[in-house]
Amino acid sequence: MSSSTGRLFRLSTFGESHGGAVGVVLDGCPPRLALTEADIQPDLDRRRPGQSRLVTQRDEADQVQILSGTFEGRTLGTPIAMVVHNKDARPGAYADFADRFRPSHADYTTEAKYGIRNWQGGGRASARETIGRVAAGAVARKLLAEVAGIEVLAWVSQVHNIEATVDAEVVGLDAVEATPTRCPDPVAAEAMVSAIEAARSNGDSLGGVVTCVARSVPTGLGAPVFDKLEAELAAAMMSLPATKGFEIGSGFGGTRMTGLEHNDAFVAGSDGQPRTRTNHSGGIQGGISNGETITLRIGFKPTATITSEQDTVDRDGNEVTLAARGRHDPCVLPRAVPMVEAGVLNVLADHWLLQQATDVLKPLE
Amino acid sequence: MSSSTGRLFRLSTFGESHGGAVGVVLDGCPPRLALTEADIQPDLDRRRPGQSRLVTQRDEADQVQILSGTFEGRTLGTPIAMVVHNKDARPGAYADFADRFRPSHADYTTEAKYGIRNWQGGGRASARETIGRVAAGAVARKLLAEVAGIEVLAWVSQVHNIEATVDAEVVGLDAVEATPTRCPDPVAAEAMVSAIEAARSNGDSLGGVVTCVARSVPTGLGAPVFDKLEAELAAAMMSLPATKGFEIGSGFGGTRMTGLEHNDAFVAGSDGQPRTRTNHSGGIQGGISNGETITLRIGFKPTATITSEQDTVDRDGNEVTLAARGRHDPCVLPRAVPMVEAGVLNVLADHWLLQQATDVLKPLE
Amino acid sequence: MSSSTGRLFRLSTFGESHGGAVGVVLDGCPPRLALTEADIQPDLDRRRPGQSRLVTQRDEADQVQILSGTFEGRTLGTPIAMVVHNKDARPGAYADFADRFRPSHADYTTEAKYGIRNWQGGGRASARETIGRVAAGAVARKLLAEVAGIEVLAWVSQVHNIEATVDAEVVGLDAVEATPTRCPDPVAAEAMVSAIEAARSNGDSLGGVVTCVARSVPTGLGAPVFDKLEAELAAAMMSLPATKGFEIGSGFGGTRMTGLEHNDAFVAGSDGQPRTRTNHSGGIQGGISNGETITLRIGFKPTATITSEQDTVDRDGNEVTLAARGRHDPCVLPRAVPMVEAGVLNVLADHWLLQQATDVLKPLE
Amino acid sequence: MSSSTGRLFRLSTFGESHGGAVGVVLDGCPPRLALTEADIQPDLDRRRPGQSRLVTQRDEADQVQILSGTFEGRTLGTPIAMVVHNKDARPGAYADFADRFRPSHADYTTEAKYGIRNWQGGGRASARETIGRVAAGAVARKLLAEVAGIEVLAWVSQVHNIEATVDAEVVGLDAVEATPTRCPDPVAAEAMVSAIEAARSNGDSLGGVVTCVARSVPTGLGAPVFDKLEAELAAAMMSLPATKGFEIGSGFGGTRMTGLEHNDAFVAGSDGQPRTRTNHSGGIQGGISNGETITLRIGFKPTATITSEQDTVDRDGNEVTLAARGRHDPCVLPRAVPMVEAGVLNVLADHWLLQQATDVLKPLE
Repeated sequence: MSSSTGRLFRLSTFGESHGGAVGVVLDGCPPRLALTEADIQPDLDRRRPGQSRLVTQRDEADQVQILSGTFEGRTLGTPIAMVVHNKDARPGAYADFADRFRPSHADYTTEAKYGIRNWQGGGRASARETIGRVAAGAVARKLLAEVAGIEVLAWVSQVHNIEATVDAEVVGLDAVEATPTRCPDPVAAEAMVSAIEAARSNGDSLGGVVTCVARSVPTGLGAPVFDKLEAELAAAMMSLPATKGFEIGSGFGGTRMTGLEHNDAFVAGSDGQPRTRTNHSGGIQGGISNGETITLRIGFKPTATITSEQDTVDRDGNEVTLAARGRHDPCVLPRAVPMVEAGVLNVLADHWLLQQATDVLKPLE
Repeated sequence: MSSSTGRLFRLSTFGESHGGAVGVVLDGCPPRLALTEADIQPDLDRRRPGQSRLVTQRDEADQVQILSGTFEGRTLGTPIAMVVHNKDARPGAYADFADRFRPSHADYTTEAKYGIRNWQGGGRASARETIGRVAAGAVARKLLAEVAGIEVLAWVSQVHNIEATVDAEVVGLDAVEATPTRCPDPVAAEAMVSAIEAARSNGDSLGGVVTCVARSVPTGLGAPVFDKLEAELAAAMMSLPATKGFEIGSGFGGTRMTGLEHNDAFVAGSDGQPRTRTNHSGGIQGGISNGETITLRIGFKPTATITSEQDTVDRDGNEVTLAARGRHDPCVLPRAVPMVEAGVLNVLADHWLLQQATDVLKPLE
Repeated sequence: MSSSTGRLFRLSTFGESHGGAVGVVLDGCPPRLALTEADIQPDLDRRRPGQSRLVTQRDEADQVQILSGTFEGRTLGTPIAMVVHNKDARPGAYADFADRFRPSHADYTTEAKYGIRNWQGGGRASARETIGRVAAGAVARKLLAEVAGIEVLAWVSQVHNIEATVDAEVVGLDAVEATPTRCPDPVAAEAMVSAIEAARSNGDSLGGVVTCVARSVPTGLGAPVFDKLEAELAAAMMSLPATKGFEIGSGFGGTRMTGLEHNDAFVAGSDGQPRTRTNHSGGIQGGISNGETITLRIGFKPTATITSEQDTVDRDGNEVTLAARGRHDPCVLPRAVPMVEAGVLNVLADHWLLQQATDVLKPLE
Repeated sequence: MSSSTGRLFRLSTFGESHGGAVGVVLDGCPPRLALTEADIQPDLDRRRPGQSRLVTQRDEADQVQILSGTFEGRTLGTPIAMVVHNKDARPGAYADFADRFRPSHADYTTEAKYGIRNWQGGGRASARETIGRVAAGAVARKLLAEVAGIEVLAWVSQVHNIEATVDAEVVGLDAVEATPTRCPDPVAAEAMVSAIEAARSNGDSLGGVVTCVARSVPTGLGAPVFDKLEAELAAAMMSLPATKGFEIGSGFGGTRMTGLEHNDAFVAGSDGQPRTRTNHSGGIQGGISNGETITLRIGFKPTATITSEQDTVDRDGNEVTLAARGRHDPCVLPRAVPMVEAGVLNVLADHWLLQQATDVLKPLE
């Protein structure tokens, strides 16, 4: 029911895939941050359709417009409304979906929940909804860099059975952006391109894994119970379209280690602060950041909308078949990278602000 | 910062592991539900320490007391405060932890966040905090059974490298409760007992996986964006102590399938409603339940507190060693089962109530 | 910090008085409600500047555009984004305010809070912010009429020392809209016109009182503690610009009655349901509606921005004088009427939805 | 439905008047604040029954117990659960109310909303619910004094037709506590005592007005839209039992002034900061504190429960009469003073913390 998230850095997204516009109202961004559309557009460009032959060929410039909340290039502390108008909607391509439910898409469940559905696209279930999150994430990125030097970076680490080899501690944005797959391992990236193109030719689709790191996160962000940092990161990731799995640090692999193997021994850091010898914890212990790199893995299923013929039912319950037309991603992974980063950035911005309202009394002696 | 969760079925937990009491205030439970302590205690008994030789021997009856919100055996629609007083706290066993941070526990991060810590136990990071969630979950269980026939069941499906074979569609509570491991595969269960006892003897600990199903969930629960059902379930699971991974339906395995393999074809159900031929979606599509069984897997790391000697640092930054005394779980999995169920129940109760406030206008013709 | 209100019928407004646009994202409106711009515009027209010679002459058509959340003339259950672009902003008229704080306006406190301010108008403190609330209120009005027959009506009952005589039980919209003052007592209305015009000529301004009723409200809306219906109505009213006082039912006059005089005796209604002989309670008892007409009075101060010269200070702390130019309301009361109604409507819609999620179990026998 | 309030300084109260206990879970209080029961009890003692012959003679010590959230006399930053067990409940005195609705009390509306009611007392509508708010308010008082030197003081300024003369700028706690009426004007106080005792003798009750000031509030607390400081103060006050009206600053009197009379001219303060020559604004402009004393007036109706015979109906709709037995306040005003202070303190604590998360970037040059 609610399209909002966050407590202090709070975003409310709106817009259907084929409605008039999509966007976000971002409330709670601190005042006086330097901000213009030029800060937002690069992340939207990484997310937009048509940026390479690997993704949907829908032609959307996704040009963002800031409607409120800034003045003379700085944030006012008031809600920042950002909007992208839909241009290249072709509802005709969706006519077949008006009465036939795409398997594993949200057509049927949307109808079951609401009793009405904008069948001219995926509605709120479309990845176009994430435009608002990515726009807010770009603001979070700028804020976190300025106040805490935090850097968030994601990349494609697996497509179908192709796994990349990446050094998570040193990989940078340039390497990620060097290929259209956003996989910084050039050999794996090339294999991924071939696999994705083959899938498209076959009227099929592929899934995979995005890995994300957050570096230079200060200690003390998060909370011990429902708002554990990993809980909120998991919610942000599992609220992205097509996600099926989430791991922090050692993840499911950690379930096969013993305590002696898994525990991250503390050592004295160069500045006297505790550091850990290993990082199976993934930068978070008991819901709170410990100063090590936060490391996540997110599993995406293969895209549901494919051009092969599939069995399904129509709104009257008749068993029918369906083959999608329209312009769809044979593999969502390359475009998921900025969505993942945005989700992580928005959560961290919220927790960084919450900590400013927590650590307000003088230290104990 | 916030120890609350839920919008309509809302719980606020309180209490440190070694403070005076732990508990929960549950607000938003509908009025007129038959409810007494006898409805709550069974789930707490499944969660409590000392119930078998596999878990911590701390002796806590965990007897729940309802302080408010009921009258003559029925809910009033007002907040239900439920409290369990701590009895067998032995802070002396924690004296070593006052100045030395347990590796991979929350000692250090709690201190980093708050600048103060109740070192006489795990504070809010202790699994004792989950008493409040389990108590609320027992209320949710009763509510959901009455209004919608929903059944939630979890079990231990893996400990370390031992994997159980379980038919998720038919397994029942009796089979789960038949062994102290809460693994309904008797062969695997026996191997798990041996492995856990060996780990304890070695001063070590083990992790594993809990699988959870929710059956007979009506279609239409959930939401398309931030409040996707799988996002809120992920948050509930990843906010439990020691969790490192979450999967819905096909999970990470689904990333290695193609769209043609992964898509759940619709077929006409016996009542004319759409059903799916497979359930890789795990009962949720686009954040909304589709009427199939909801299926989750949650990965737990090995317990951090072990009796072997480990390297760590003290509050002054000196490198020291630490070997835990006290009564700790060599494997948290058996006790995690009711915690997982409670988390799922609380989320489903919230979404079921939300749907009552959504589907209020007459159907379109 | 937060520009959002409501739990289930939730609105987030955005926009500065002289920024690009103002608007609202309304989340939680039930699906399938018939809704187009034509349902929204009439309330905006009652609120807009330039509608009569009694109010500011800023020329804004305030034409609303629905960007999302509807399809083929019905709500989708998804966020409804509604936007009004600012047209006739004349920031030059505000140049004097860039460095000089208008007395009793929000210029100084905005600067104190945020350290930055869009001085080209009143920013978020401008009555233009209420466009979003009024747009959402129009949706609430349609919903409440359809599901419960609720009718909300407000009027100007006092301007300066001129008090109207109005029968609150029978007065209708036509009588309210019959004069530009929105005072349904024609004699008082004429005196108010004269007083307002005199104030304008003198470079001065006037305040007054708006009375509001909500009729046919079902019993049982509201809550007993923080969310008492009168508490949320008070917040909605006191969050409107220029409000200084709020009364429910007998109000401050009730403080001079005794219990025997003030108590509303119950009598059997014609349908067997309890009714009250008097309505000093104003339709709400213990925070919950009792089926009688809800009656509110809201006090508005005289407009702060006046054209007479006043003493003030500038941003450097120098004592200076200031006389406003620009187009300002000499009396905000006539335009406040739709704002008051919208605030009441939005609160009632939220509580009506909440009650649908409360009254879900079968009645006790 | 929700018994919670606040965003960062968040309280959730629980408990019926004649249930097992009443209390509060306070979440979000910053860590390291010195706090023991001795900081809470004095405000509860000012609120408790039986403290003078002017109020109900129910004998409750209202001894508070802190169950969690503190360690060695300091807050941990975790939820502070505070509980008071009910001792002197005499449900027999309420037997007449089981089937007959007290006029102007919440008996009927509670039944209309929930379909069930604890008739052994006022349930959640009882003033006993405010114990939790007052306990939280005592924590807020300590926090605000320490971080910002804020002082909140309330007193009885009117009972029935008796109005006190009080200099709001200088009156102190000692003068308020000098008489059992909590009216710091000795002459009026004596008249109030006589009037209250006469009302009690007559089986009647009286209402009145509480005035409250908040001194030394820093500039910049509050927000421009829904969370205006006066809006949240109004909600806190109108959520107290028996309140019918709320005024900030000039209140309804201000509606009879002109802009020239009402505007608070700015002058240069002794420290160079802007101050105002008058304070018709009541310390808040545009929802945000301006550094002047915040001034509120809250109107309370006469107590509904009186011993005179009154007309009412029973649960079957029959017209009957009712005369209360039991121990009731003939005038709630003296005990309302600490409730008012607590409501104001809790709102200010929340806004002070919010401001710490707002003002985080360096000032503009």
